[in-house]
Amino acid sequence: MKILAAQINTTIGDIEGNAQKIINAIERGRSEEADIVIFPELALTGYPPEDFLLLTEFLHKTQAKLQDIIHASKGICTIVGLPRLNPDNHEKILYNSAAVIENQKLLGYVDKILLPTYDVFDERRYFEPGAQPKLWDIRQKKIAVTICEDLWQHSGFIKTTHYLRDPVLELKKLAPSLMLNLSASPYSYDKFKVRYTVCCEVAKTLECPVVMCNLVGGNDSLIFDGYSIYVDKSGLIQKAKGFVEDDLWVDTEASSKSLHLKDNNIADLYNALVMGVRDYFNKQGFTKACLGLSGGIDSALVACIAVDALGASNVMALYMPSRYSAAESGRDAKQLSKNIGIELREVPIEPSYESYLNVLSKDFAGLKSDTTEENIQARIRGTLLMAFSNKFGYIVLSTGNKSEMALGYSTLYGDMCGGLGVLGDLTKRQVYDLANWINRDKEIIPLYIIKRPPSAELSPNQKDSDSLPDYEIVDKVLQSYIEEHLTPQQIAKKYQFPLNIVEDLVKRIHRNEYKRRQSPISLRVSEKAFSVGRRFPIVQKWV
Amino acid sequence: MKILAAQINTTIGDIEGNAQKIINAIERGRSEEADIVIFPELALTGYPPEDFLLLTEFLHKTQAKLQDIIHASKGICTIVGLPRLNPDNHEKILYNSAAVIENQKLLGYVDKILLPTYDVFDERRYFEPGAQPKLWDIRQKKIAVTICEDLWQHSGFIKTTHYLRDPVLELKKLAPSLMLNLSASPYSYDKFKVRYTVCCEVAKTLECPVVMCNLVGGNDSLIFDGYSIYVDKSGLIQKAKGFVEDDLWVDTEASSKSLHLKDNNIADLYNALVMGVRDYFNKQGFTKACLGLSGGIDSALVACIAVDALGASNVMALYMPSRYSAAESGRDAKQLSKNIGIELREVPIEPSYESYLNVLSKDFAGLKSDTTEENIQARIRGTLLMAFSNKFGYIVLSTGNKSEMALGYSTLYGDMCGGLGVLGDLTKRQVYDLANWINRDKEIIPLYIIKRPPSAELSPNQKDSDSLPDYEIVDKVLQSYIEEHLTPQQIAKKYQFPLNIVEDLVKRIHRNEYKRRQSPISLRVSEKAFSVGRRFPIVQKWV
Repeated sequence: MKILAAQINTTIGDIEGNAQKIINAIERGRSEEADIVIFPELALTGYPPEDFLLLTEFLHKTQAKLQDIIHASKGICTIVGLPRLNPDNHEKILYNSAAVIENQKLLGYVDKILLPTYDVFDERRYFEPGAQPKLWDIRQKKIAVTICEDLWQHSGFIKTTHYLRDPVLELKKLAPSLMLNLSASPYSYDKFKVRYTVCCEVAKTLECPVVMCNLVGGNDSLIFDGYSIYVDKSGLIQKAKGFVEDDLWVDTEASSKSLHLKDNNIADLYNALVMGVRDYFNKQGFTKACLGLSGGIDSALVACIAVDALGASNVMALYMPSRYSAAESGRDAKQLSKNIGIELREVPIEPSYESYLNVLSKDFAGLKSDTTEENIQARIRGTLLMAFSNKFGYIVLSTGNKSEMALGYSTLYGDMCGGLGVLGDLTKRQVYDLANWINRDKEIIPLYIIKRPPSAELSPNQKDSDSLPDYEIVDKVLQSYIEEHLTPQQIAKKYQFPLNIVEDLVKRIHRNEYKRRQSPISLRVSEKAFSVGRRFPIVQKWV
Repeated sequence: MKILAAQINTTIGDIEGNAQKIINAIERGRSEEADIVIFPELALTGYPPEDFLLLTEFLHKTQAKLQDIIHASKGICTIVGLPRLNPDNHEKILYNSAAVIENQKLLGYVDKILLPTYDVFDERRYFEPGAQPKLWDIRQKKIAVTICEDLWQHSGFIKTTHYLRDPVLELKKLAPSLMLNLSASPYSYDKFKVRYTVCCEVAKTLECPVVMCNLVGGNDSLIFDGYSIYVDKSGLIQKAKGFVEDDLWVDTEASSKSLHLKDNNIADLYNALVMGVRDYFNKQGFTKACLGLSGGIDSALVACIAVDALGASNVMALYMPSRYSAAESGRDAKQLSKNIGIELREVPIEPSYESYLNVLSKDFAGLKSDTTEENIQARIRGTLLMAFSNKFGYIVLSTGNKSEMALGYSTLYGDMCGGLGVLGDLTKRQVYDLANWINRDKEIIPLYIIKRPPSAELSPNQKDSDSLPDYEIVDKVLQSYIEEHLTPQQIAKKYQFPLNIVEDLVKRIHRNEYKRRQSPISLRVSEKAFSVGRRFPIVQKWV
């Protein structure tokens, strides 16, 4: 049996465009004599469609478009993900489904059974769980079809939900000869290994091969890496490419041997960010980005990512020096711009800074300079970037990293300005790792940018370490508190950190919730990113 | 039987403080010889606790504190809301529960059956639905205890969920003599009538009285109006006050007659906003607010609300004129400040505006003035407000209304700056209604502020109507599209508006999603506010 897992990059709400990609893949499948072509989860609507699922017209158009796909499926079996109206009297009006089509005939639907409602997932908001799974008789094979999460309970990787059902075990009783899975499994660091393990466990239990077709592409914060998988009980046989559309051609009859798994984690992380930026722009019809280049490591990394995502000619950087900027900052910003081929403009912030100090001099008379004046500088830079954005149509890329976002070490309406936060889910450690990786063959990012102590350059001789513990400490506390939900006491004990330092960091995380709530969306690359996957009130007295 | 419905104002995560309020109410109940004292939903943790519910330590502390409440319940029956660990093997580890305590003994728990997972509610993220309801034998009465939503299915007011169970009908079989309901039912315009109808329907079906103890207070965006209810089958017998803590004393044996319902909608709306501001400040320990007074109606209204929430001496206004400010704007800002007794400072934006134009003159040479220059002015004002905030500890109140937020008729990082958006869920029409209501006895808001055509004053002789349809049209389209989910075609037909105008407005709503995502949280006063209750992707091709 020949299967095409069509790893396509869908756009939310682009039912017409997504359908065209689906139909094109059906045609590729047919011309290569595939028996079955499968697609990612909710391929027809794009993923995640969120509250578009509450609009009747959206559902109608989806159903109407399915007819075109059925019509296009001449001589081939097509399995395509879409929401469908629940015909039964149930709590929610929708199922998260896959239409099973054979030679222009709709055989029926598979409905997702396990509905993730944790972290970034809200499936219980829209969907009703599917009933009993069944097998599909297609071309002399008994085929199991599942949607994403339905494979996952079996290997016990789900943390905050203890599903009572395991669709894999339910299907085992029916002895399938092949498992096809339609997924929209988002990227996070080192996620492929987990997904691969999930598929292997299922293949072992069912004693049959598993093909998982995963979504690829960026959709707001969520990045889908693709890497569709074909495994049998001996392990990984084939995988599609990561971070690009790809056709995974599977021949279940061909002799096969296991692939050796390579660790591409750092390259994957970089590619995830590049694709996240590219799709944020492409899917909205934007082409040009601008950013502030400070001579620091965060903005240098974002500039490199932007160039790979959009092309050097579409990236413009502003260098905006103040009285506190070191000469090296300007030198390095220029050198980096030259190295990566982007335009650099210089706009000083001094005249505006002085104008603010003047108009405020009466009201602030006799008061010491403090973060107020630091923030004014950052906000002038934000205002200048937004002026270029407004005047020329650039989208501003925000350069703050997760460590800074956690602790509020950033200026709201200042360096937090932008349409997209590129590094908002990366620890400072990961920022350094990526910078060094970019420089693996030659010095693209000037070395001094990587070597100098981090500084916001908003006051004389300022260093991040003046007001923050070492980033090694910060990053460990963040990881333990945000991703692992450890208490300050547990964290202090685990790493032998002073408890008061840990408690202070945790307080800062919660105290800066109001800032993060006003930050641009940022690309999710960890198991637990700030934003939609992590929901804490601003007003609270727990911490 | 004498019941105290203790309508308390809880704070999320303040387990200690909430427990103290609960114990104080138990003591008031005991001293007045009440049989039972009841509290709002999740009173011990505050509502909604969101992802604090995922922290083990948070759950442990809640359970530990329950012991103190049990200990305090000598001689009285206490029914108090809290999350509890689900002892069964179920999908989610928690129930949304009420502990039923009689004379220092924990009789057991009631677990919420219907778990709202729509709009602002995410209960399926945390909770498992409760099993069969039962009656509690307390002091010779058979008492039904329910939590919020469990009453609502019965009257059919729930829109996006079709629960299969109706706990009221399940309880009817058991013939209760009294229904006690623990609620955290958020305020929206005219909501009391709905809640009252829900209780009446239940009283009629069960043929017994219903006491609903509702939460009061502001928690981030959500406002709880209180107005706890006592009804019997003849209608409303008693209600607690709105927007303040209150004790509702119910004597089920006393003779009673129905209350006449008064329409307090506009006063309620005002009080909701005042309480929302006050609690945002009080619960975080903030005291002082500042805002920009432009001479327009939105900022005038916010100033009045702030004064009632925080006291005139805690409110400071900035008047920040530009070359485009009409003389009347300054005059009216001064007159209003005088009328309501707040300090007004004047800081001109011209020097800073000129400094930006100068440093940008080379880059912008030969280009026409456009929204870029308008936004620079708004961002200077934002920067100045934030400077006062940083220097003196004011929290900035943002003054944009829902109509502007919908259409992006506001400057990100400019007039959208602030910790809290006071009017973000009010249509322009409601802003006028409130302003006129404030002036019902005397001219507090200078009449010209209400009468003048709305203008952002960012370019010569600018009027909102230059780039927006009339607010009467805008508001109707918003209401129909956002709250009623009508299509542009349906809206155009319903109001006889030109389809292209409606379509353009709907496009603008979606195109400005990225702006709203970066706005401060704002107080929810409608059935469907922007923010957590309305979840649409930024990147999409549906609209």
